[in-house]
Amino acid sequence: MSLTSDIQQKIDLKTKPIGALGELEELAKKICLVQNTTSPTLHKPTIIVFAADHGLAKEGVSAYPQEVTFQMVHNFLNGGAAINVFAKQHNIQLKIVDAGVNHDFENATDLINAKVGKGTQNMLHEPALSSGEIAMCFDKAKEIINSDAIKDADIIGFGEMGIGNTSSATLIMSALYKLRLDECIGKGTGVDLEGFKKKYNILEQVKEKHGDITSAIGIISAFGGFEICMIAAAMLEAASLKKMIIVDGFIVTTAYALAKALNPDIQKNAIFSHVSDEKGHTLLLQKLDANPLLHLGMRLGEGTGAAMAFPIIQSAVNFMNEMASFSSANVSNK
Amino acid sequence: MSLTSDIQQKIDLKTKPIGALGELEELAKKICLVQNTTSPTLHKPTIIVFAADHGLAKEGVSAYPQEVTFQMVHNFLNGGAAINVFAKQHNIQLKIVDAGVNHDFENATDLINAKVGKGTQNMLHEPALSSGEIAMCFDKAKEIINSDAIKDADIIGFGEMGIGNTSSATLIMSALYKLRLDECIGKGTGVDLEGFKKKYNILEQVKEKHGDITSAIGIISAFGGFEICMIAAAMLEAASLKKMIIVDGFIVTTAYALAKALNPDIQKNAIFSHVSDEKGHTLLLQKLDANPLLHLGMRLGEGTGAAMAFPIIQSAVNFMNEMASFSSANVSNK
Repeated sequence: MSLTSDIQQKIDLKTKPIGALGELEELAKKICLVQNTTSPTLHKPTIIVFAADHGLAKEGVSAYPQEVTFQMVHNFLNGGAAINVFAKQHNIQLKIVDAGVNHDFENATDLINAKVGKGTQNMLHEPALSSGEIAMCFDKAKEIINSDAIKDADIIGFGEMGIGNTSSATLIMSALYKLRLDECIGKGTGVDLEGFKKKYNILEQVKEKHGDITSAIGIISAFGGFEICMIAAAMLEAASLKKMIIVDGFIVTTAYALAKALNPDIQKNAIFSHVSDEKGHTLLLQKLDANPLLHLGMRLGEGTGAAMAFPIIQSAVNFMNEMASFSSANVSNK
Repeated sequence: MSLTSDIQQKIDLKTKPIGALGELEELAKKICLVQNTTSPTLHKPTIIVFAADHGLAKEGVSAYPQEVTFQMVHNFLNGGAAINVFAKQHNIQLKIVDAGVNHDFENATDLINAKVGKGTQNMLHEPALSSGEIAMCFDKAKEIINSDAIKDADIIGFGEMGIGNTSSATLIMSALYKLRLDECIGKGTGVDLEGFKKKYNILEQVKEKHGDITSAIGIISAFGGFEICMIAAAMLEAASLKKMIIVDGFIVTTAYALAKALNPDIQKNAIFSHVSDEKGHTLLLQKLDANPLLHLGMRLGEGTGAAMAFPIIQSAVNFMNEMASFSSANVSNK
């Protein structure tokens, strides 16, 4: 028999009606196929949060000042953010990466230093990332995924922090799928009506300046950011090593969309954690034909959706390995 | 300030944009209000699975033979069912209750014996439960909730096992909300087209026989079963003791609907875990104005939806207790 039918048979002989575990069964099949087994594992689950700053932030596209990026990195390192709470709850290893924060971190020994620069260029005037910076993001992503702390993880969730990065994500989505700005733009961390109009106006100018771009790398270069580029590269590396990847919210999903444009095979490894309340995310998930696990109206980033979805993924693996079959439990089948 | 505004203030000062944790924030508020605190707890989370048989099963309304009820109880006691796997994963205490299984369990020391009878009467010919049996269900439910193993649980999920019990649940839903049978009936554990027609035909006859019934107790009496009645009673007792209750799938939701008809205040304590793939559940949740946490296409019962939802509820409590505030983390607020 083929692996696919072996997996299906194992699922169907568990003590439950056929198909009764719904999406857990789809998840189990997906993980088994990536791992080439009917007894999947999720060793050393890990979430990596990539933080970086954005040159465009100085135009006032966010409800929060740029300094919040580095302050939140400190909050991550001190264990006080939502992602710390949820990662701890689920025994998920949490790693924080400085992909290009506009701050000198001193004595931050727990922080992975992968700084490409002190924030991207202001894309209102020039491309956010140079080709050299893109290459650095790919190199550093590969290094991180292959580092001692992370190389044995069977599953990696991706999170981000970067004041201004819904602006990048909006422009990336709009360019990748040739969508109008109003189909992609949302309120981010929560700009008010006036702030939203300002953000819209600035993003229109940025879009106008860069014109039509078709290649994924061209889109990354124009709209950044360091964290988005590094996440896309890290996802590609993780998938090439047969790891499962958990896609978080709006910004991480745009990184995934870029990764998929570079290598469509990555979809075999991807698990979509949740639908964010950020406006563009629902349409973006539709464009990716993605069926996320959770619909909790969250819009926080940091990988919080990935952490919340992890126990569901673990349940898919656990039922495969731990549930009795009709014959082992002496239960009458239909 | 009022407790409500104290809770809201504590949530809004956490290091996240206002409202960014979506339904987790609603859950946190709900639990805080029941527990009269801004620092909620979920000590000794417990799931109780109530098992019982149904007289109607002999008419062939299920895809499985009646013996599967007792066989699955053995499977629960031996740790091989889906609910065992998920309860273990989340450190949830699991208790199995014999509410009226058509089987003599010998040496089953882990089974809570609350047997009301060896299955209900066949409702095709007479009421499923006598008034004496209903009273026994209420007495035994109260005893169980106040037992040493369960009395300290802050949160209780409810599950069920009983071949034929989607038939009871369908008729209960139809009677409670004056809905047509075709709006409520589904395939249960998975009858085929012929089996579905047979089930439909038999339920029509049962409905015809019992006529219009308006009181919740009258509905329980007509359509049973022991497990559904005992769950409704146990939910009412748990809520009266300020415990949170987790409502599982289709059958447990009909038990909740009966409980709510008896005491509408129970909604303050109720958390809806998931939407089952069983057809009537979506409409039933709408009738209850309930917004369930998970949409995973599961239809297994046993409390599996309640177990899968538990980590989300735990996350709501954890963020309230463990996340830093803007001031404690030195993060700039808007």
